[in-house]
Order: sequence, then structure tokens, then C-alpha cells
Amino acid sequence: MTSHKWLIKNGQFAVSDPEWRIVKGYMLVENDKISYIGEKLPEGEEETTAFDGKNLLFIPGLINTHGHAAMSLLRGYGDDLALQIWLQEKMWPMEEKFTADDVYWGASLSILEMIKGGTTAFLDMYDQMNQVAKVVEESGIRASLMRGVIGFGSDELRASKLAEATSFAKEWNGQASGRITTMLSPHAPYTCGPEFIEKFVQAAHDLDLPLHTHMSETKAEVEQNVKDYGLRPVAHLEKLGFFSRPSLVAHAVHLTDEEIEILAKYNVAVAHNPGSNLKLASGVARVPDLLKAGVVVSLATDGPASNNNLDMFEEMRLAALIHKGVSGDPTAVPATEALRMGTEYGAKSIYVEDTGTLAVGKKADFVAIDLDQAHFLPYSDLISHVVYSASAKDVKHVWVDGKQLLKDGEALTLDEERIKREAESAFKGLKAR
Amino acid sequence: MTSHKWLIKNGQFAVSDPEWRIVKGYMLVENDKISYIGEKLPEGEEETTAFDGKNLLFIPGLINTHGHAAMSLLRGYGDDLALQIWLQEKMWPMEEKFTADDVYWGASLSILEMIKGGTTAFLDMYDQMNQVAKVVEESGIRASLMRGVIGFGSDELRASKLAEATSFAKEWNGQASGRITTMLSPHAPYTCGPEFIEKFVQAAHDLDLPLHTHMSETKAEVEQNVKDYGLRPVAHLEKLGFFSRPSLVAHAVHLTDEEIEILAKYNVAVAHNPGSNLKLASGVARVPDLLKAGVVVSLATDGPASNNNLDMFEEMRLAALIHKGVSGDPTAVPATEALRMGTEYGAKSIYVEDTGTLAVGKKADFVAIDLDQAHFLPYSDLISHVVYSASAKDVKHVWVDGKQLLKDGEALTLDEERIKREAESAFKGLKAR
Repeated sequence: MTSHKWLIKNGQFAVSDPEWRIVKGYMLVENDKISYIGEKLPEGEEETTAFDGKNLLFIPGLINTHGHAAMSLLRGYGDDLALQIWLQEKMWPMEEKFTADDVYWGASLSILEMIKGGTTAFLDMYDQMNQVAKVVEESGIRASLMRGVIGFGSDELRASKLAEATSFAKEWNGQASGRITTMLSPHAPYTCGPEFIEKFVQAAHDLDLPLHTHMSETKAEVEQNVKDYGLRPVAHLEKLGFFSRPSLVAHAVHLTDEEIEILAKYNVAVAHNPGSNLKLASGVARVPDLLKAGVVVSLATDGPASNNNLDMFEEMRLAALIHKGVSGDPTAVPATEALRMGTEYGAKSIYVEDTGTLAVGKKADFVAIDLDQAHFLPYSDLISHVVYSASAKDVKHVWVDGKQLLKDGEALTLDEERIKREAESAFKGLKAR
Repeated sequence: MTSHKWLIKNGQFAVSDPEWRIVKGYMLVENDKISYIGEKLPEGEEETTAFDGKNLLFIPGLINTHGHAAMSLLRGYGDDLALQIWLQEKMWPMEEKFTADDVYWGASLSILEMIKGGTTAFLDMYDQMNQVAKVVEESGIRASLMRGVIGFGSDELRASKLAEATSFAKEWNGQASGRITTMLSPHAPYTCGPEFIEKFVQAAHDLDLPLHTHMSETKAEVEQNVKDYGLRPVAHLEKLGFFSRPSLVAHAVHLTDEEIEILAKYNVAVAHNPGSNLKLASGVARVPDLLKAGVVVSLATDGPASNNNLDMFEEMRLAALIHKGVSGDPTAVPATEALRMGTEYGAKSIYVEDTGTLAVGKKADFVAIDLDQAHFLPYSDLISHVVYSASAKDVKHVWVDGKQLLKDGEALTLDEERIKREAESAFKGLKAR
């Protein structure tokens, strides 16, 4: 661990203990942790050497709890199509051709975009995850990584994929000074048979890791589950012991009241992907009901091909907006809750609970937003502004583990020009092959 | 009219004749109009003196067809509240206190934000409209302006407000080198009695002006209309002769099939406010059905207090996303249509049809987007990127009537620092009074 020290003065800090409030003053970061937040200069520190936080709002780093970073290479390659055409004619044929380099540059492009937009931690479920892990290591971002396994094909193929997933999870858990953690991840109940899912559950117990999967994203998939197994996905996964592990399910759009109760009972976290769910016409998840039931609901972009950006401010805003519009209740998912979903609940969802809030003892993963802009005036309510007015490009500086990754909008750990060039060239290569 | 000439080289130009396509090459602007778009250097022009459009995507200026610019002073002042509490306890008591200066600085703040975000024309319905008109004149933006009249109070009060609305409309129509046009605007059927609305219709005939109003924003308001007048708002307005004038209705969230037919029959345009409708929990307008029926549907932010920004890219994205999610049809409102709603259909909606597309003979209202950014890579489909990935802050340059208003993100015609300072001070003054 490199040693870091940051004393920030003149800042406004969004803390949530337990209500959101803005502390005006100082924050001290020592090494990878926050050691002080308060109105007064911390004892023994010198005002003169401090980083000037004037016109900056400091918020916890945003946490993107479900995605497929390498798919940035397919951004805009197929839009406004029926789901099966999009998958079968656009995504899958291209993804089949992905080389290790493609995954490396695709992940680099996404991680660059995420850091520039204030995301300090993300979950990634994909193939060739060593490549993603390498970029995480180099970039300084935090990530929960997993090999997402589709269970089609022969028993041998399945066994080798499971072995790959577990060996990746073992090898990389705790790497990059602890910034990388891992999970195990069967892709979905509709792509993995029950016995195969049970093997993942067993492996998760053996390795003491959480589980992640896609669940109940579309209505058709829920109906297919009932047809195939006589159960809706939640009861199906419950029966397979999935929820006996700490677990995070992505999407959870189509849920009954009983299913919400089961998720709450097992403390299953939900990665809500409002942009992707809308774009792919999957529907609108029952987020207000989930939150009411005490389920931890976090936010995610999903892959960049179904979003099409990785702007977590947009996901917070969508979460705050769509549930009001659809339920008819203007108090549904208030800004304060949307910001928690993008930060604190994200940390819980990926089981990295020493992040997600600005508080003494927490990891120094934080973001400075440039408040000196027309769309943030007047300074009536900064939490409202973060959720209802801000976008990725309002982010000026980003720190993870106390290390600055973005300075005045410029990435410090990644070669932006090279990444853009290589990503464009990778896309052209994929189209040409 | 000041004379302007811009020869742009190395640019990518989004034209729509009739399908969207990207022309790579040159655009020539002479005075207030586009005189050439093509792959080759226009005859008689010199390459060396041209403005370099490298890494820039040129799109028609965005057109925001419904709003209340001065309400930027109330951004974030009341969120996540039930509509009546928001209006009665937050908005109205503050708006009552608005001085001419407040309207001036509120409108300045909004117009600054709009120009910075690529909006080249907007519709504004508010009080003290002389102030808004002044800012439009100074800033160089284009606008359709109108005094929005609430018909409560005595006959005398109503008569004086109508007189104020018509005299404003007469005085300012065609001002600012033609950049200002005007309409007449009774606020809504639920705030203006039938006879009062008929007076507006008559005045619109007398002055040969279009009409604008809020219509069917909430379910409660539709029910009240039926209770009060025995008709839903569309039939009610039809009966009052409203649609005998070129007319634009804002919101139109709650419509029956028959109402959609009536709107189509009279060529009534609809200003769709997806962000505001969601935030105020009004519901989701039947946009795919309206478009299918041939109704011109444009996009709008509504006032900044119910949005809370004036980012038209966000409204295009919301329009493209929510109707897919709610209808279950991933082909609903494709990116190509959302971009038309934000540009060409906007021009039709505010009856300024010589704007809204990049084409020879059209007004030179256009925007350059900085493509050299992670979230626009790979360059797979630039129209998709504009709708699904871009935000206000990706706008680098803006021109209206051939005059550059924004250069490298800096406003050329407005004093940004002063506006921010005055807006903050106006907000503090309103709270203190």
C-alpha cells in the first residue's frame, strides 16, 4: 500500500449519519481511509498545505453493481431492436469473436468512462476475466469480479467453465491491495440447469464467496422458469440453496409480493438497472416495494450496449424518476434514497461494506463534483442537485483507496488517448472478422 | 442582421433527408442560413480559412418546447413532495414574490444553461415576460414567448391579464431580428374558464398567432374537467375553438384513443415533458400512439423546479427509454425518432419551421458535440450515441442564426459568473422576504 495523505479544506461533504447532511469544512484522508470530517481544522494539521475544496461537493464514490465492461466495444452496435434479434443477430455473434485483447480494451474503455464519471467500484460479470482484473489493477478502481458462466453444452464444457470461474475467484480475491474481490456467478436460471447452479452454490460455500446472477429480468424468462421447473425464479433459486450464500441478483424486474418477502427474508440484494430495463423493454422493477420490504437495492448500468453509457448519476436520476411516474406517487424513491442506492447500498450489494459512505474509518473512495455550474444554481439542496441535475461530466476529481485517479477531469492512471484508439480499432477488427 | 460566415471543414453533419445520415465534409453558413452541406469544398471557398470540425458531430440545435425559465430560481427548493404540497407550500408562495429582477436573473440562468447544453430555441410561458424577452434578445437564443395567464379572480383582473398577454405578443413578435416569436397562452382548462379561453382563441385569430396551454397533465385534472364541463379536456378545447388555431399542448399525458384522433385531425402538436411528468408522478404519455397517429410530438423540460435541469439530451433519452420500458416494445421511439422530437418536431411545434434540421436554406441554428470522449467510442452509430450516451456537457459549440453563442463550452453572449452570482442572491432574497 502506497501511503497517501489528503487534507481537504473549504469543502462540502455529503455525510449520511443517518440522515443526509452537508458538512462544511475539512476532510482528512490517511493512506486508504478517511480519518476526519468536520468543520474545524483537525488537530496537528496545517491549513496552508491543504487541497482547496472550494466550489466542490464531495460525495461517496458511486458503485455500479452489475455490468459487463468489455461490452463497451458494442456500444451503439445494435439499438431499438427486439431482444432476441439484438442478442442473436447483434451481440452474440460479435461477442463470440472477442479476443483477450478485445476484453482488455473494452474493459479499459469502460473503466476509463466509469472513473471519469465518479464510479469508484463496479461489479463485472463476463468472460476472460483475467483481462478485466488486469485493468482494475492498473487503473486503481475497486471491483467485484466474476466469470459469468452460461451452462449450455456438454458436461465437460460446464465442468471446465465452473473450474475456470472458481480458479479465477480464488486467484484474484483480495488482489490489487484488496481492491479486487470476487464472487461466483452462474449467468441465470434460464441458462444454467438446477444441478449446475447447485454446483455453484457448493463452490461458493467452499470458497466462502457471495453469489451473483441475472434473475427475472423479463416476463418471458419467468414464465419459462415456471414451465421448466414448476417454480418462479425466486422460489427456484431458494430451493437450490442459492440464497444460503450472501447473494446479489441483477434486475429482479418481475416479482410477486411473495418473492419480495423471500428476498427480504434471506437478505438478498438487488442490482436495479433502470436504464437497461427500459431500453430492452424488460419493464419497471418494483423498487419502492423492495425498499419498503427492507431489501437492499443498489444501482447498475448493465453493459454499455444496453444503456448506452456508464453514467451512474443517470441511473440514480432514473431510479428517482421512473418509480414516481409509474406508481403515481411523487414521494417514491426520493433523492436521498436514490443517492444511497448509488453509494451505501451499492457497497452492501457487492459486500465491500467499508466503502459507500463518507465517514471516519471508511475507505477513502470519494468524488468531487464541480458545483460552480449553471445547472447547480441556486444552492438550495445539494443532495437534490446530485440526483436531479448532475451528470457524469460534473465530476472533477476521484479518489479510490486514498489515491487520486481523476484530477480536473483527467485520468491519472489510464492512458485515455490510447484506450480510445485501441477500442475503436478493436471494434473495427470485430466487424471485419 | 450582423453578417456571419462560417465554413466548417472535417466535420460530421447529421442530416435527415428523410432518413438520418452522417455527411462527412463541409458546411457553409452565410449570414443566418445554411448555404451548403457536402463532402466537397464548396466552390469558391478556401480550405485554409475554414473552422476545423475534427472530432465534432454537428446536429441541429435542440428545441425545448415547454418551460418556465425563471423557475430555475426554485431548482431544488421542493422535491419529492405530493403535487399540491409542492405547488401550494413551495412554488406558489415563492413565485408570488418574484420581482422583475428575479424573473430576469432566473431566465438568464436558464438561458445560460440551455445554450451551454445545445438548446438553440425554447418556448417560455410565464409572467413578467418582458424580462425573459430581454434576456433572449441579449443572449442570441431563439424563443417562442408568451404570457401564461391563470384565469382566477375578478373579470377586471382577467381582462387586464388578457390585455397584458396580447400586448406582449404584439410588441415582441418578430423582435430580436426575428428570433422572438410569440403565442397566446391561457394557462390550462382547469385554471381558465371556458369563456376566458374563448377570448384567447378570438385574440389568437385577431393577431394571427398560435395558442399554447397545459392540457391533461394529471388524471385528477381530467376528471375535474369532466365534472365541471361534462367533457374531457380535448373535446372541451375543441368545443371552445382552441384547435381552430395552430396549437401546441403541453403534457397530454392522459388521453383516450378518441382524443388522440382529435389531436391528429386538427394537427395539434404535443410538447412531451418526460422528466417532469415522471418527477411530478403525472404518468407516462402515450407517445408511441401519438406518433403513430401522426401527431407532432416534441420534447420539453418543463420548468427547472420539476426536472431539475434543462438538459434536452436527457429528455431525448427519456423519451427513447421510458416508452420502451412501459410498453414492452424495444422498438418504441427509436433513437432516430427521439432526435427528431428534440429538433425537427420541436421546430414544427413552436411554428418556426425554418429551423430544426441541417439543410440548405434553413436557419443556421446548430450544435457541435465533442466526439472525442470515452462514452462515444466506438464510433458505431452517432445518432444512437447522441440519444443514448450524450449529455448537455458534451456540447462544445453552439450557433443560432449563424452567430456563435458558445465556444469551447464558454458562453459568448452572457456573463456566466454574474448570472450565477445574481441567481444565488435572488434565491436568498426570495427565501428571506
